[in-house]
Amino acid sequence: LTDRSALDTVFFLSDYGRRDEFAGVVHAVLRRLAPRVTLVDVTHDIPPFDVRAGAAALARAAPHLGPGVVLAVVDPGVGGPRRAVVAETVPGPGPAFLVGPDNGLLLPAADALGGIARAVDLGRPSVRGPATFDGRDVFAPAAAALCNGEDPTALGPPVDPTGLERVADPVVERTRVADGRRLVRAEVTWVDRFGNVQLAVAGSEVPTGPGAVGVSAAAPAGGPQVGEIGVGPVRRVRTFSDLEPGEVGLIADSSDRLALVVREGSAADRTGINPGMLVELVW
Amino acid sequence: LTDRSALDTVFFLSDYGRRDEFAGVVHAVLRRLAPRVTLVDVTHDIPPFDVRAGAAALARAAPHLGPGVVLAVVDPGVGGPRRAVVAETVPGPGPAFLVGPDNGLLLPAADALGGIARAVDLGRPSVRGPATFDGRDVFAPAAAALCNGEDPTALGPPVDPTGLERVADPVVERTRVADGRRLVRAEVTWVDRFGNVQLAVAGSEVPTGPGAVGVSAAAPAGGPQVGEIGVGPVRRVRTFSDLEPGEVGLIADSSDRLALVVREGSAADRTGINPGMLVELVW
Amino acid sequence: LTDRSALDTVFFLSDYGRRDEFAGVVHAVLRRLAPRVTLVDVTHDIPPFDVRAGAAALARAAPHLGPGVVLAVVDPGVGGPRRAVVAETVPGPGPAFLVGPDNGLLLPAADALGGIARAVDLGRPSVRGPATFDGRDVFAPAAAALCNGEDPTALGPPVDPTGLERVADPVVERTRVADGRRLVRAEVTWVDRFGNVQLAVAGSEVPTGPGAVGVSAAAPAGGPQVGEIGVGPVRRVRTFSDLEPGEVGLIADSSDRLALVVREGSAADRTGINPGMLVELVW
Repeated sequence: LTDRSALDTVFFLSDYGRRDEFAGVVHAVLRRLAPRVTLVDVTHDIPPFDVRAGAAALARAAPHLGPGVVLAVVDPGVGGPRRAVVAETVPGPGPAFLVGPDNGLLLPAADALGGIARAVDLGRPSVRGPATFDGRDVFAPAAAALCNGEDPTALGPPVDPTGLERVADPVVERTRVADGRRLVRAEVTWVDRFGNVQLAVAGSEVPTGPGAVGVSAAAPAGGPQVGEIGVGPVRRVRTFSDLEPGEVGLIADSSDRLALVVREGSAADRTGINPGMLVELVW
Repeated sequence: LTDRSALDTVFFLSDYGRRDEFAGVVHAVLRRLAPRVTLVDVTHDIPPFDVRAGAAALARAAPHLGPGVVLAVVDPGVGGPRRAVVAETVPGPGPAFLVGPDNGLLLPAADALGGIARAVDLGRPSVRGPATFDGRDVFAPAAAALCNGEDPTALGPPVDPTGLERVADPVVERTRVADGRRLVRAEVTWVDRFGNVQLAVAGSEVPTGPGAVGVSAAAPAGGPQVGEIGVGPVRRVRTFSDLEPGEVGLIADSSDRLALVVREGSAADRTGINPGMLVELVW
Repeated sequence: LTDRSALDTVFFLSDYGRRDEFAGVVHAVLRRLAPRVTLVDVTHDIPPFDVRAGAAALARAAPHLGPGVVLAVVDPGVGGPRRAVVAETVPGPGPAFLVGPDNGLLLPAADALGGIARAVDLGRPSVRGPATFDGRDVFAPAAAALCNGEDPTALGPPVDPTGLERVADPVVERTRVADGRRLVRAEVTWVDRFGNVQLAVAGSEVPTGPGAVGVSAAAPAGGPQVGEIGVGPVRRVRTFSDLEPGEVGLIADSSDRLALVVREGSAADRTGINPGMLVELVW
């Protein structure tokens, strides 16, 4: 288990991008306040204000992080009434603390790390003054203090972990269709740089095998109107190399989620499917 | 105050981008020449050759940097007659040295750090041979030498700090209009990733209050022809949360500059205002 | 020479981009498995699956890297039959090991470092299970083990270094034309962020001097059809400052390759030349 009085790594995720100096200034503040600490950038290119995308990326990364402090900022409510929080995870080999806004960003990662043992409230902006750069002024100093061995209770009053905000779970619906086949309608949770289209379905839910899986996609209710996208029948295979170059298929991705992929190509470009759409699988 | 013989942090800003290996090679050179040193990337996405944008970003970051050496490269004159310089700041808690081209990039940050105590000339390219990668071949070795405790005078002859190049100050004009109202015409100094439009005006100059502020924008003299952009009357508020979602307003940003913003949206996208334009405020 | 039992730097290049958490997760895995080690990002913005572009970037960076381990992943064949390898370089001041897929990515850098002394096979995916994130699951653990002093022979069986895959060399053809002038037709090997167009020709091959060099470009055989691009006669100069602002010219770049450049501008934007095209020089 982690010695929580000697943490020397901060894992930093945000929607700050890298074209401005925001992420660099947070690095500098951490370097100044906790010089022993090494900072690992998870990513700073979460789409601006997209809390669900940030929460999903952090949860995917969480199982691979060692001891340390997660510092995460995707924060459309900056300057508003949302709280800033520290969540301490249950004992385990991964990060001991998660620091960020109480807007749902942290909880999927905390779940992946085994859950939250206790939490404290770092305060509300109205108490703190008009700062609009909480990463620099609130979250980085808190992460530095935790690395320096300060107890979270020194940073603010305790809050009930079960009362922390949660983002909506991704949509998944499962039915059987008339002829005994199964139908799953699942939200697209992520399109990565390579154009792989991750669905809110475990890899194990759709088995590999000789039969093809019918795939189509549509915009979610209330989303922008797009016609239904018919992808057609594709193969559920074990690895990319089971596909022909350029072939669309379904695999279990490196997070063990089902993903629509193209071998040596972009499934997103090929199909026009975007995050938030609903994909229908029939097999 | 900083012990200037044991600096262990380099703050690195450039227009190198990250898609090529330029910034990585400078990291590697620093790692080789000064292995104890930690490098903090401020940003590498300054628009190519945009010295004023680089100088502004470095000046915004400067107050938040601890002890160390600033290494900054935005250098349209590479291979030309401009000098490479080291500027030593007056004693203070921030960076002790700034290393880069003598083209105005360093001085706003040096001002923010209290001013320059002394400076040395690292030489001109004509003396150094045809190198066209001064970050790798000139600036990084100089930054490493300073971290290793070398005195700047060992790196080149002294130069008069008052003779270093300066970038033009951003445009600000203040007048009173007929009916007693005030009018400020100010240059757009920065549009950040979130679309916040920073103006060359202190946050305190336009007070919060019940009255609206008239906002319009136009291209600078000699700039590309664009029609005047009428933004209309907006509220000067204290924080984002004082605005309705989607509302345009004026706030003091995290550098205490006045900024045109949209709550949970992009003011730049909404208004079409770009860096370099002049924004007119009437109240 | 490097003490190969105490390597404390990993140089990391990939096509992972930075918008997803891929590169950050590899950082975290290295941090967990080899906490003493500092990671230097060379770049993660190699175009997806472009092994030749990755190999070229790594070879350009290699002479500037100090002791350590190169971790490189550009891997269209992930999940397929290609091998994962460790290549140990001949003794020298640079990286001692290169870790990555056996698809040609590593060899130009190994050549730049003096050649490969021995190599081992980290195994094939079919032996390792369905992992599709070899950077996290195979390459980073191998790099960490090498930094921790493990002998490469502990990681897999030896393989003949001369049997490792190579990428195709860039195209260069040299002829004399009727009137005694020389003609070189050379592949565009790189267009950098600034729009400099690097050719597969040493800087010394085309001399500086008063005569102009005729420049034109065309798509490679089998490439997309584009009309021939006539750039016209340009000057071969020593540095950017020998050109007028906006003038197109030829210089020896910082890797001592010939490059088509525009002073304070983008030669790629000006001419429409892209990587992979063939440029014809006549002088």
